[in-house]
Amino acid sequence: MTISKGPQAFPRSEYLRRLTALKSEMVWRGIDALIVNNSCNITYLTGYTARSAYVPQALVVSTHQEEPTFILRRMDAPAAFHQSFLERGNVIGYPENLIANLEKDGFDTVIDFLHELGFAKRGLGLELGELSMKTGQKFKERMPNARIVDCTHAIDWIRSVKSDLEISIMREAAAIADAAIMRAAEVIRPGVREADVMAEIAAALARGANGKAGTDFASMFFCSSPRTGTCHIPWSEDIIREGSQINIELGGVRHGYVSAIMRTFSVGQPSDRLRRLHQAEVSGLEAALNTVRPGATCSDVACAFYRTIEKNGFKKESRCGYAIGIDWREPTASLREGDMTELKPNMTFHLMLGNWIEEDFGYVISETFRVTETGAEALTRAPRKLFELC
Amino acid sequence: MTISKGPQAFPRSEYLRRLTALKSEMVWRGIDALIVNNSCNITYLTGYTARSAYVPQALVVSTHQEEPTFILRRMDAPAAFHQSFLERGNVIGYPENLIANLEKDGFDTVIDFLHELGFAKRGLGLELGELSMKTGQKFKERMPNARIVDCTHAIDWIRSVKSDLEISIMREAAAIADAAIMRAAEVIRPGVREADVMAEIAAALARGANGKAGTDFASMFFCSSPRTGTCHIPWSEDIIREGSQINIELGGVRHGYVSAIMRTFSVGQPSDRLRRLHQAEVSGLEAALNTVRPGATCSDVACAFYRTIEKNGFKKESRCGYAIGIDWREPTASLREGDMTELKPNMTFHLMLGNWIEEDFGYVISETFRVTETGAEALTRAPRKLFELC
Repeated sequence: MTISKGPQAFPRSEYLRRLTALKSEMVWRGIDALIVNNSCNITYLTGYTARSAYVPQALVVSTHQEEPTFILRRMDAPAAFHQSFLERGNVIGYPENLIANLEKDGFDTVIDFLHELGFAKRGLGLELGELSMKTGQKFKERMPNARIVDCTHAIDWIRSVKSDLEISIMREAAAIADAAIMRAAEVIRPGVREADVMAEIAAALARGANGKAGTDFASMFFCSSPRTGTCHIPWSEDIIREGSQINIELGGVRHGYVSAIMRTFSVGQPSDRLRRLHQAEVSGLEAALNTVRPGATCSDVACAFYRTIEKNGFKKESRCGYAIGIDWREPTASLREGDMTELKPNMTFHLMLGNWIEEDFGYVISETFRVTETGAEALTRAPRKLFELC
Repeated sequence: MTISKGPQAFPRSEYLRRLTALKSEMVWRGIDALIVNNSCNITYLTGYTARSAYVPQALVVSTHQEEPTFILRRMDAPAAFHQSFLERGNVIGYPENLIANLEKDGFDTVIDFLHELGFAKRGLGLELGELSMKTGQKFKERMPNARIVDCTHAIDWIRSVKSDLEISIMREAAAIADAAIMRAAEVIRPGVREADVMAEIAAALARGANGKAGTDFASMFFCSSPRTGTCHIPWSEDIIREGSQINIELGGVRHGYVSAIMRTFSVGQPSDRLRRLHQAEVSGLEAALNTVRPGATCSDVACAFYRTIEKNGFKKESRCGYAIGIDWREPTASLREGDMTELKPNMTFHLMLGNWIEEDFGYVISETFRVTETGAEALTRAPRKLFELC
């Protein structure tokens, strides 16, 4: 028996549009086939969101064929057909004896396929920045006559401008992120274990918002006193105390797309220093969003933030954010001084204003926003306040 | 102000024991320094579990120094000091301008540090299987006189035999995994959204068991009819129906260590075929566990399972499991025919008997077990039944 096609997050036309953009880029780069290894890029081009990337898998995009071919572990092939827009014949499962096999792995199947397609002497794109040395060398050794072109981040840049359909999905994800922040505000109280708050946050992220469920979990960070100077600790075994500060970062997920948000919580009265930092950061956030418009650069947005908080007596060392979309961070544009990427409508960013000022003192606030025709639209909409709880 | 040291999952002596074992291996391989890039191996050698591995970071282990040096993004350095056993001077934060920088990155700081330490012409271990081509080439170019030795999986093999302290932690993680399975059995009912079940499962995984909270989330998979032939879909937007079958895989997490479990649920009466497969698989599971003892091989265990289910008229194509520990899978021993790894006391495995027989029909059961002095101890202990719910 065969598995049925599942509901699709996007129509076939949307995937073909993405592939057309990619194929133009491939022609420009002089390659006939592109071996897509990055799992976010595979999601982008197919709709596949199952978590099989811990073993070799690759999508082969050819300029000569409408649909790409997805080669992955046989165990994962039914999910690839079920979740993606691909025809059955364009999902190939490689045998289980290539798993935990020191001699050969799934990339050998990919290379065999390229030979079968007659690509042995053609231009071949690889995402070399994503491949291990061992795999990169395997391609070079087994395809000695191919002209290998490094296409790292080529698809990521295409992903950077979203379609309206993608924006709708990210709006749904943002509503889920907001709901989780509001749930945190309901349950953070003195005497409660951090783990019990995370239980409620995770539950809110799965349940979703406005009738749209979360479709996966993304990273969640809960950095509380005395850890507010840290940023990537999931949570600790502590109990929340009177006077504790808590910095939360989380993301709502819909069909692989993440909208992220950060908010700071104070159990009891915040210190004057925390209050001043919060006010400076919210002013900086507003200044940054007010700078966003098509034609402005990432650097412009970052500088608007930096100048505003400096006027208020604070500094931030790290960048102000980055492109966001499938599976959170996109490795393309950064909201940092000197990044001259021009903003275009429907680019999306996580304006990440986490500011870890001292080893033991930090504050977080952020929004996921999109560039509109005239400015910025914040997709996340939880109140921009320092949540004071008691 | 400086951040305080947090509570440690293990005493300093445990980390020094691990480092001593690694340094013996390094001497045997003729290297003075090992650059540890794999985040599980960093957790193993330091106790650090924060999620910063999406940017460059590395632990430098030298045979000439008791403690290693952890070089990571400055933003993440306070968490590294707080969570790890390392002295303050052995955590080095590299500046934020190395993030999203096309010219230089954190690995340049690592290489500068190796030059400062006088390792330019020494034997240098790299986990080449983990490094991207770009990073591997950077090491070769910037350290042309070093003798680079590939140490991929060297630490993973040391990790494969756990200490009693690690086993205790994995037992705690297993109890959490069990609790989440039992929670699933309470909430899976016709008419309930899959997302709402996942909300309850995730909450159970955070809350923990026996007073020990979960400390992070691991992957969770909920593959329901008509997707029981798939294995790595987090969940779908469907509602559970009368007659649905649901295959769940999840892991409890304590201090980075994961104990994993799989169970199958049937809403209403299972089909005869599912019942027969369940009985065959449980017999196979018991046969496999009964084969475990020091000196037996991974292949022996796998064959015991395969022969048992074959006698019952079923086959399984994929391996029967793999070594498990920090962050789930360890890339070392596999429970598969032909893997001649000899079992030793306190090796731990996920006996993963998920069997995706047809595109639209699969069944799952698994246990995380340890090898004892005389046999096997299942760490996960949820009932080995086909959960029938109504």
